[in-house]
Amino acid sequence: MSDYINALQKKPVSRTPIWVMRQAGRYLPEYRATRKKAGDFLSLCKNPELACEVTMQPIDRFDLDAAILFSDILTIPDAMGLGLYFSEGEGPKFKHPIQNLKDIQNLPSNLNDDLTYVFDGVATIKKALNNRVPLIGFSGSPWTLATYMIEGGSSKTFAKTKAMLFNEPKALHLLLSKLADSVIYYLNQQILSGADSVMIFDTWGGVLSKQNYLDFSLDYMAKIITKVKAQHPNTPITLFSKNGGKQLNEIANTGCDGVGIDWTVELGEVERQIGSQVAIQGNLDPAVLYASPAVIEQEVKKVLAQFKGNTGHIFNLGHGITPDVDPENMQVLVEAVHKFGAK
Amino acid sequence: MSDYINALQKKPVSRTPIWVMRQAGRYLPEYRATRKKAGDFLSLCKNPELACEVTMQPIDRFDLDAAILFSDILTIPDAMGLGLYFSEGEGPKFKHPIQNLKDIQNLPSNLNDDLTYVFDGVATIKKALNNRVPLIGFSGSPWTLATYMIEGGSSKTFAKTKAMLFNEPKALHLLLSKLADSVIYYLNQQILSGADSVMIFDTWGGVLSKQNYLDFSLDYMAKIITKVKAQHPNTPITLFSKNGGKQLNEIANTGCDGVGIDWTVELGEVERQIGSQVAIQGNLDPAVLYASPAVIEQEVKKVLAQFKGNTGHIFNLGHGITPDVDPENMQVLVEAVHKFGAK
Repeated sequence: MSDYINALQKKPVSRTPIWVMRQAGRYLPEYRATRKKAGDFLSLCKNPELACEVTMQPIDRFDLDAAILFSDILTIPDAMGLGLYFSEGEGPKFKHPIQNLKDIQNLPSNLNDDLTYVFDGVATIKKALNNRVPLIGFSGSPWTLATYMIEGGSSKTFAKTKAMLFNEPKALHLLLSKLADSVIYYLNQQILSGADSVMIFDTWGGVLSKQNYLDFSLDYMAKIITKVKAQHPNTPITLFSKNGGKQLNEIANTGCDGVGIDWTVELGEVERQIGSQVAIQGNLDPAVLYASPAVIEQEVKKVLAQFKGNTGHIFNLGHGITPDVDPENMQVLVEAVHKFGAK
Repeated sequence: MSDYINALQKKPVSRTPIWVMRQAGRYLPEYRATRKKAGDFLSLCKNPELACEVTMQPIDRFDLDAAILFSDILTIPDAMGLGLYFSEGEGPKFKHPIQNLKDIQNLPSNLNDDLTYVFDGVATIKKALNNRVPLIGFSGSPWTLATYMIEGGSSKTFAKTKAMLFNEPKALHLLLSKLADSVIYYLNQQILSGADSVMIFDTWGGVLSKQNYLDFSLDYMAKIITKVKAQHPNTPITLFSKNGGKQLNEIANTGCDGVGIDWTVELGEVERQIGSQVAIQGNLDPAVLYASPAVIEQEVKKVLAQFKGNTGHIFNLGHGITPDVDPENMQVLVEAVHKFGAK
């Protein structure tokens, strides 16, 4: 097995594995070329061949230990009929956001045909990878998907979603429950199509109070993990709650194999807290990639030095790589992790 | 003395005091009227009479336990000559952002005349308050000010500031050191003009890793606290690092009297951790104000129930009140805190 899967299962590794969130992305000129060919971002996501092409680009360029499906976290709400689109510079938007309980009750539960392009993408990538490195599938968390569906796009205050949370908690729970069922189907199907591991991105769990995070985000992720594990007990699952550093014990208790952490918590602290239970993914500040090669090496060493185990660490940034990073610096990062990481 | 000052000094209170960040703000129709009269936001900040008028508005309307100087956190960089302006919907901007070490070396150290309008504002408000409630002065933290000065405005990734942090740490330390000296002068002068308490807002400390937070943000705030305390030992100082919930012990050890917390950490947890050392300000999720009066009362009770001491709690939101909140709901909040809080 690969070092990436071994690290997630806390088995011995030949070296500290590394992959980088958004490793297939705008910082790569070859990505920008493929995206131009596709027309726009969503057309790129919905074309299995082109999605495969961009997924492979960082694997061909760098010595990475895992590939991750190129897709968007909002494919499920799009398949539910909310009409996903991207307006330049403003992020994702929905033509038909959720406004009330009736909208939630009317959401379709069978998304089979509408997500075929994702599963075709996974199969296409798996074939192209030819077992060079494992393939990671993923989904947004129910809470994170719900925020976009209710706000109609990105938000700073999450006013509409939180108004529903406080005023109509049952309506929100119904939405989250429907989303959890869809995510279970979605991840199971990605695994059946060839994903070796899956990850749940809870981008907005960190905007909730602790109790609301447990009730409206983590509980649904725990349910997803239980159900996916029931079908695919050997497929490792990683959970990443951005800004979730204060709820680590609860996250580790969901039954996930790996926990993603951002750079605002100390990797060594996290290892002491939950490292005996789960693997830990992270946590270099993505802004380190704006620094000189010498500083990148030094900061990589600092992160590596915090981790005391021989396995159970998957090196990553604490958040996605930013579009204005020089690809040469990504090269420096990957080489530094292999040079100074566990052997 | 007032309940607000007593709570900060952990002396007995007649009731749990409450004030609300941005209590003088856009959610109030009378604020919008005064701002229209002033022309724009910066003209409002720079006019002591109008700044006094909006500071007093929430005090006249609600039964609040403290007033806070109406001003902007970027007055110091503006006085340093960076040319602060506000473009509608985009937040603060600087005409002349900091680009290199030379820009930092050239910053003026004597800001006396350029900040007179702030000190005049404090004196005007103090007189208008006529001891009804104490007056809180404030400043942005050096790190927070530096991010705006280097980025030229708001940022999501803080790319330029962090590039300087990693590549030219000495240049950034020089900037932070100059800013700390200015903040010391600024807060001392506000106290001499009538502020009964001061607060340091570290809006962006939470985007740093722990060690960088300690080195580039907290150290400078600790220095400010030491120096201001040396001049004004009886004036309580509150420190608020947004997303600082992971560094509570270090924050409490700066010598501050109160620690502001956001809603993503549990008030009861925070009290157990640092409540014997300092007073705690917070921490209702501002989004609760989108809920119905019954839910607002219920959520206020939850926050109050977590705090076990008889004093040392200043009720507040975990972040500023948002512009689209109904003022009636602010009324419900203030009444609920007085109805259900400590007696």
